[in-house]
Amino acid sequence: MNRRLLLVSNSTLYGGGYLQHCQQNISDFFGKQVKRILFVPYALHDWDQYTKTARDKLNSLGYEVDSVHEAADPVKAVRKAEAIFIGGGNTFRLLKALYDNNLVTEIRKRVLQDGVPYMGSSAGTNVATVSINTTNDMPIIYPPSFSAIGLVPFNINPHYLDHDPNSRHMGETREQRITQYHEELNTPCVLGLREGSLLLVEGNTATLLGTTNARLFQRGKQTSEHEPGTDLSFLLTDAQ
Amino acid sequence: MNRRLLLVSNSTLYGGGYLQHCQQNISDFFGKQVKRILFVPYALHDWDQYTKTARDKLNSLGYEVDSVHEAADPVKAVRKAEAIFIGGGNTFRLLKALYDNNLVTEIRKRVLQDGVPYMGSSAGTNVATVSINTTNDMPIIYPPSFSAIGLVPFNINPHYLDHDPNSRHMGETREQRITQYHEELNTPCVLGLREGSLLLVEGNTATLLGTTNARLFQRGKQTSEHEPGTDLSFLLTDAQ
Repeated sequence: MNRRLLLVSNSTLYGGGYLQHCQQNISDFFGKQVKRILFVPYALHDWDQYTKTARDKLNSLGYEVDSVHEAADPVKAVRKAEAIFIGGGNTFRLLKALYDNNLVTEIRKRVLQDGVPYMGSSAGTNVATVSINTTNDMPIIYPPSFSAIGLVPFNINPHYLDHDPNSRHMGETREQRITQYHEELNTPCVLGLREGSLLLVEGNTATLLGTTNARLFQRGKQTSEHEPGTDLSFLLTDAQ
Repeated sequence: MNRRLLLVSNSTLYGGGYLQHCQQNISDFFGKQVKRILFVPYALHDWDQYTKTARDKLNSLGYEVDSVHEAADPVKAVRKAEAIFIGGGNTFRLLKALYDNNLVTEIRKRVLQDGVPYMGSSAGTNVATVSINTTNDMPIIYPPSFSAIGLVPFNINPHYLDHDPNSRHMGETREQRITQYHEELNTPCVLGLREGSLLLVEGNTATLLGTTNARLFQRGKQTSEHEPGTDLSFLLTDAQ
């Protein structure tokens, strides 16, 4: 399988600029062969403004950027894309627009069959997985399904957050929420990517990158902590 | 309109027991006429255990409790209910089960036409409103719609949380999430009920109760803060 993915937990890390904390990873991932990246701005309301933000940053790393919303035919834009980047924002809004524009299957084909490199951050990482069942976002729009692009056989929880023992807030902790997901039958494992983490997938190899540990939730098993550099390729087989 | 609603932000307040912080409101609301309350435990996975928790608490306040999951026919149970209480948990799981059991329309009829008192807490408050678009919960299950029971013409965000200025977490604040909801067209106002708040609706009168302010978000208008005791009846008219 040609699959190449860079799945980023968060677009911006506290105190830094947009995609600043992972810019070296981005340059390493797209390399010098990629010249143009197709950006998908659907997760935020103002597509023009969002495209400008992404374009400015990726231009500074040496890449030209086309936005899918500027194309007359989004499906054709995906068909001829050299590389794809789906940005963060609201995951429900993003997935609805991907379905509305017939891009879910098209992106899956391009990435899994044609080996087009895919980068996602936050919501763009959520939609790369099996489903958006483990997003943190508010369900502001009803999508036709929670099933997502399915570039990997597991789910991710971006912006994974540990419980603050000093908090007096009684809403469920992130761990409780993911545990509730696993109370349901046939639910895949969930990789909790803390801010600062990212996952690199090259074919059937997955490696945790970045500066923070990730927390892995497997239905019916103990959760486990994994350090940057860990080989997580076992997550890519269906029978984890 | 006979409508009588007690919409509670949170089932448990920090440092207290289940429904302890609002037990006087519950007694005042159901009064002495109500003898039996129909409980809906669908928002949590273990319906028996959840029913025991709710039953123990409501028994201590002088009410008998039937659970809808113990009834042979949930629709019939709603049709003969004297009063209804929907507990908190996961809003997606709850709404899916309400639809699966044909209870959405049935509960709406009983409350709006027959004047059956309705109490909700957290997820049970979410489903009482126009839609679950402003829940905080993780979308662990795909419901057939985000439209909810619609006992009031606005939405609620339970467990409303102010931004912590010391936080380094870069996920959206609650205010940003609700603002994103209002970027979408034709979205109703959203009442952010902080933990400790509850809303009492009697016919066409709505009053904020509890110990904390509520924050009101209206599309295209400034947000506003409201103290306990405030008359919020204007929220019950469609043209807010």
